[in-house]
Amino acid sequence: MIIAVDAMGGDHGASAVCPGAIEACRTNPGLEIALIGDKAVIAPYLDKADAGVQRRITVVHTDEMVDPDEPPTKAIRSKKHSSMRMAMEMVRSGEAQGCVSSGSTGAIVAGGVLVVGRLKGIERPGLGILLPTKKPVFLLDAGATVRCKPLNLVQFALMGSIYMKDVEKLTPTPRVCLLSNGSEEIKGDDVIVEARERLRQTDAINFGGYVEANRVPQGDADVVVCDGFSGNVMLKSFEGLIKFCKGLVMDTIHESLLAKAGAALLYPSMKKLAARVDYNKYGGSALMGVNGAVVKAHGRSKAPAIANAIGVAAGFVERGALERIKTDIAEELVRSGSGTTLR
Amino acid sequence: MIIAVDAMGGDHGASAVCPGAIEACRTNPGLEIALIGDKAVIAPYLDKADAGVQRRITVVHTDEMVDPDEPPTKAIRSKKHSSMRMAMEMVRSGEAQGCVSSGSTGAIVAGGVLVVGRLKGIERPGLGILLPTKKPVFLLDAGATVRCKPLNLVQFALMGSIYMKDVEKLTPTPRVCLLSNGSEEIKGDDVIVEARERLRQTDAINFGGYVEANRVPQGDADVVVCDGFSGNVMLKSFEGLIKFCKGLVMDTIHESLLAKAGAALLYPSMKKLAARVDYNKYGGSALMGVNGAVVKAHGRSKAPAIANAIGVAAGFVERGALERIKTDIAEELVRSGSGTTLR
Repeated sequence: MIIAVDAMGGDHGASAVCPGAIEACRTNPGLEIALIGDKAVIAPYLDKADAGVQRRITVVHTDEMVDPDEPPTKAIRSKKHSSMRMAMEMVRSGEAQGCVSSGSTGAIVAGGVLVVGRLKGIERPGLGILLPTKKPVFLLDAGATVRCKPLNLVQFALMGSIYMKDVEKLTPTPRVCLLSNGSEEIKGDDVIVEARERLRQTDAINFGGYVEANRVPQGDADVVVCDGFSGNVMLKSFEGLIKFCKGLVMDTIHESLLAKAGAALLYPSMKKLAARVDYNKYGGSALMGVNGAVVKAHGRSKAPAIANAIGVAAGFVERGALERIKTDIAEELVRSGSGTTLR
Repeated sequence: MIIAVDAMGGDHGASAVCPGAIEACRTNPGLEIALIGDKAVIAPYLDKADAGVQRRITVVHTDEMVDPDEPPTKAIRSKKHSSMRMAMEMVRSGEAQGCVSSGSTGAIVAGGVLVVGRLKGIERPGLGILLPTKKPVFLLDAGATVRCKPLNLVQFALMGSIYMKDVEKLTPTPRVCLLSNGSEEIKGDDVIVEARERLRQTDAINFGGYVEANRVPQGDADVVVCDGFSGNVMLKSFEGLIKFCKGLVMDTIHESLLAKAGAALLYPSMKKLAARVDYNKYGGSALMGVNGAVVKAHGRSKAPAIANAIGVAAGFVERGALERIKTDIAEELVRSGSGTTLR
């Protein structure tokens, strides 16, 4: 299996992506990587890898890249030799089975739609991410389709349900909930209310109604469906609060000698705990609804998060996620009348 | 000063509100409370209070209440003797200087608009809440106006700025940011983009552009402006994650003897820390943009959170928040052309 990796994206560019790619190859002996970016920048990182890993990494040279501030669609259309677009072209042509980028979300979504292409019947893609909550929760959309129509939310619900059931195989009947501003029926806006009514009539979905954000970490739903704006707010709220709490804990520990002694004894346990909620560990979100394994890594990804995102892409391919979604979605869209052509 | 308190609202009703009201009177000797609800239910709680506190609490009997599942506007219109509406009527008539309810957000907002009345020029109210972040952040709207027009966001920004500058007096030039799904200009939806352009042209505001949710706990902005849906998602995400992390910490501590010993030494410091992030401590949000001190307590409020919310209402009155907002807002709405009459 070959995964194409955009070596130039994200806040740390090649300095994070190259070590991340090496790490991913080290832990997955069946993996080959096409690293796309500036050969001169990439080469020094590869020199440090074992020969066995080096053999499995091919560098595809380009010095063009998508800038995070560029209008995404324009960037993907005009920059035909950008590292991100070239990674996606490899997926389209079949040279690679999946691709990973830590570049701008907008450009990845535009590339997913324009280069890799949408799945038949799916109107807009959604970024799906498995959260390390009490019980794993699949959040969809984490930021691809900023504002949604009811149809988009229904399609996210179908894709999320199939993913948890047939790909992650975490539960045979995933409980799918719509994120809302309260659990009561009177909550939500017009889009959410209409999506709720349509989901109620969708037999293939075990629909659990609304979920409020405070219940998400408790695992009240297996799949949480929302528009990309709300998904971003929730995900980033979690991330920011974990960082804030870590800071508070460190400050508290340094306040007294007693606390320092206590912290020393707790250190091994707390290190494990910190790893449990480290966003580096859930660094990869899959672009659901496009015709290939397209994975977005966090913009601030360092090497471990990149390695994890490559792992997400490899897992997506190994488990035949695309085929499951293609087959099941096609059936469901026809059965439920939720395909774009059936609106 | 008299604060009217809806004794029947929230998940715990009188069993939380009555002890909370007693606690508020105990800590604020200048405070009088009108407790509105079922006399027979309230009386046993009051019997437990000191004579000095009892003298300052008047019970206003009613056995009607707003149900959390009722359509808010209808409930406020039809239930003229509901505890929530009666509390608001007391503010309108001047019998009370402020009111507090832990009832449904929708009904409090409807009551604020229909009973207490909007401030001149303000189109929609917003719930403002001071978050216990690194540096206090005033979040507005925490859930009153689910979806907003650009005008609403601009008015929230003006009210939030005035509140932080002239009421909380935390900074002379509060940095006001719009919550968005990224910090780059290409982010946001049409409403947010238009609000951004209008805020840029508003001299009275120290506008800091977009803020992403992960930067909010770090205090990157003094005032965070968003629609009520996003505000709810952010606030509830924080709340849910804190609960989740506390659970993880407890589980971790019980995993080993070493960790238990460490936790025992850390206990005093961690207790302080837990209090720091306890939502009971920031239980009150003020309905900004209505003609009175209307404070919403969290639906799950227990006595300390109710006492805190009453404290928020008392502080709002003592510091002349309403007058500051009225005067400054009137000036600003005219100057910036952001009043409803000037659209």
